[in-house]
Amino acid sequence: MKLPHAVTLMPLQRHRDECGWLAEIFRDDWGQAKPCQWNATVSEAGVLRGMHVHRSHNDYLVIVQGLMTVGLYDIRPDSATRDLSASLEIGSDDLVALRVPTGVIHGFYCHEPTIYIYAMNAHFHPDDELGCFWADPELRISWPCRDPVVSERDRRAGSLAELRERLGSFTFA
Amino acid sequence: MKLPHAVTLMPLQRHRDECGWLAEIFRDDWGQAKPCQWNATVSEAGVLRGMHVHRSHNDYLVIVQGLMTVGLYDIRPDSATRDLSASLEIGSDDLVALRVPTGVIHGFYCHEPTIYIYAMNAHFHPDDELGCFWADPELRISWPCRDPVVSERDRRAGSLAELRERLGSFTFA
Repeated sequence: MKLPHAVTLMPLQRHRDECGWLAEIFRDDWGQAKPCQWNATVSEAGVLRGMHVHRSHNDYLVIVQGLMTVGLYDIRPDSATRDLSASLEIGSDDLVALRVPTGVIHGFYCHEPTIYIYAMNAHFHPDDELGCFWADPELRISWPCRDPVVSERDRRAGSLAELRERLGSFTFA
Repeated sequence: MKLPHAVTLMPLQRHRDECGWLAEIFRDDWGQAKPCQWNATVSEAGVLRGMHVHRSHNDYLVIVQGLMTVGLYDIRPDSATRDLSASLEIGSDDLVALRVPTGVIHGFYCHEPTIYIYAMNAHFHPDDELGCFWADPELRISWPCRDPVVSERDRRAGSLAELRERLGSFTFA
């Protein structure tokens, strides 16, 4: 599976014992962008969150419970993988940190109740919560669902073409 | 319930919708110590993790799923609440950030499968993972369990008196 440039999957080490497990999920000496904010998200089975894209921050995401299909699309005009579409399945069994850089549109379909934690290297701001409709055929993402539960905001999202127009000639970091 | 000095419970704001919920769990403009590391812990029902205490870092902890009884004991010689013992029940329904400073011994009994995320303001180091036996009567903690699942390390932990001796005249920040 080819991923958009600078999307990375970093394996994390899980320490299991009779109690459950524990893992370091982020350390500031791992060379990632310094987060200034962390969010937690809990989703029911059948939920799709997306598609979202940001101009000002990367997402650094760890699934601590559940399983999801991640859909990605590279909208960066200057990217070596411009217009690349990808989807991959990640769950808490894998225990990886997924980095999604600015300019990579992303959405998450949850196969089961799923909890993930994510770090941002800029504070949340509604103006930087851009997106497009998850089922836009131009995204070429094979979602494993037909009628997912989608938030009102995501249901009302415009097309990929409209998102391109809104971004204009914006240059992603 | 009186808590050891500088133990805080900060309510977090949960944004619910038809998909589940989302919350900002940490922002660097909230005035907390800057974390350099985040860990995730998953515990089965009936697990007790503790008692632990650190010389070099605070813990900043958020329960994203489950319910636990938190036991606390203030071992700081210079604290206004020296030797204070406390226990409180916190679950993901409450959605709070619990701050446990250096010198406050802490343990967590999980009533159900429980997931929490915690930040540290110094990197994990085994030398700073001190502790004592969870059922030491000198702690005066009323645990809601008799025979919890405990890790090998926690099973072998010494007494509170031994921990005091090991800490000697250490001054907590």
